[in-house]
Amino acid sequence: MSDTATQGPLLIIGGNEDKEGQRAILRAFIELSGGGADARIAIMTVATRHPDAAAERYLTAFGRLGVQHIYPVHIIHPEDADSTGVHNLLEWATGVFFTGGSQYRLVSLFGGARACDLMRRRWRSEGLVIGGTSAGAAAAPQRMIVQAETHISPHRGLVEVEDGLGLIPDVLIESHFAQRGRLGRLLSALAEHPEMLGLGLDENTALLVRGDEFRVMGSGAVTVIDPRTATHSNYTTIADHQPLALCGLTFHTLPAGYGFNLTARMPLLPMSSQ
Amino acid sequence: MSDTATQGPLLIIGGNEDKEGQRAILRAFIELSGGGADARIAIMTVATRHPDAAAERYLTAFGRLGVQHIYPVHIIHPEDADSTGVHNLLEWATGVFFTGGSQYRLVSLFGGARACDLMRRRWRSEGLVIGGTSAGAAAAPQRMIVQAETHISPHRGLVEVEDGLGLIPDVLIESHFAQRGRLGRLLSALAEHPEMLGLGLDENTALLVRGDEFRVMGSGAVTVIDPRTATHSNYTTIADHQPLALCGLTFHTLPAGYGFNLTARMPLLPMSSQ
Repeated sequence: MSDTATQGPLLIIGGNEDKEGQRAILRAFIELSGGGADARIAIMTVATRHPDAAAERYLTAFGRLGVQHIYPVHIIHPEDADSTGVHNLLEWATGVFFTGGSQYRLVSLFGGARACDLMRRRWRSEGLVIGGTSAGAAAAPQRMIVQAETHISPHRGLVEVEDGLGLIPDVLIESHFAQRGRLGRLLSALAEHPEMLGLGLDENTALLVRGDEFRVMGSGAVTVIDPRTATHSNYTTIADHQPLALCGLTFHTLPAGYGFNLTARMPLLPMSSQ
Repeated sequence: MSDTATQGPLLIIGGNEDKEGQRAILRAFIELSGGGADARIAIMTVATRHPDAAAERYLTAFGRLGVQHIYPVHIIHPEDADSTGVHNLLEWATGVFFTGGSQYRLVSLFGGARACDLMRRRWRSEGLVIGGTSAGAAAAPQRMIVQAETHISPHRGLVEVEDGLGLIPDVLIESHFAQRGRLGRLLSALAEHPEMLGLGLDENTALLVRGDEFRVMGSGAVTVIDPRTATHSNYTTIADHQPLALCGLTFHTLPAGYGFNLTARMPLLPMSSQ
């Protein structure tokens, strides 16, 4: 439904992005937002219980990369989200960046606010750039996996899937994918939602989403699991806490330069012009 | 080439099998080996630098399950493997069980010995049962992944693949798969050996292999990754330490009761008679 001529890009980061070295992902966010001199960045700390530390981390990181206009936006209580200050900053920004923490907290405090509608409207029709790392990545799609066990075999009922920010349809995103052993919980969520596409983002690895395509950036890989090709699932025949069977899923691992078409569900090879 | 009428079964365990509760996997090994009163079990501690502790653990576990005839077999120096004592125990046993430790150590000390030929011959033609857990599972196939980093994105050259004990062709086995975040290293090995099938065994989860089929036992899942369907790999075009791209792999997660035909590369649904 979205008009990709006016819709802004999304930069969805698997957590722990480089803040000291080449900093390719943070640099990309700045460039997308207008460049160091012109970018106006709002740092959304709503996901974390330690908003001052999160803000400090990104004010420093973006500041060192030459960003001149940057403000933290703290939403600690539900009523904060629709304050004039928050609305003004979301009107002002060219780029909005969500830090890590808890995706459940992020969406609980912000997802239902008029400020979130404002942000989505500016993203859809004014090219606003939205970035998110860790919990800020998990929360970006229509639906999101909320906290669940890691390093575990896929089981029915292992994860809860809740509404996210609604920026990407039909995908479930895990951050810290390789580093925190989250294959089992992504598969558990896909067994319950076999129409979704599973995306596992490693740390310091990002998706740059434009319209219905993304390209991978950073040092790790994006694991793509497509359950639409499944030949068998035991999900409807077992009780909660029972181990899942899933047969015939399609699996891709995509590093920097590779991409994916979310509509066609097809990987994209690196563009020679990149 | 093997005659499955005389060839023994293999019980390949992803590590940390239950030794206190239902103990379904250890019970299965005993039953396969002739039952508590008749089984003659040799505990092969060759993989570990702490053979006395490993032997004690399994002497106790099998003893509590009623096994009456059980001996530890320690191979600490290369010359130990072909001692008369080791040969006699491998002639005597109805079941040979390899403990955990290092699969590299296991194969270095035992894989080239005449004692290993003796074991394989009795397995092929006399129905000897062979079990292995953790490193003892990884070492079972023709080829094995030796120690490598975990919790990491797939990279070229991340793992070394060496000769194993030669009991299963064309598969690579990872133990502790979910618990130790080993997806990246299994994918790294498969990128280098795309003719192989990747099997990731979770803890307290086992493959019962008979001929070219296996069935899953235990509480976790076996992850099966088949690279033969791959539509793209960047393996031959990148340098060591570069991140891998693999597209179009086939992926299954199989819990207890499910199985797999290794020749047809097809999952097997639970048998109603089980």
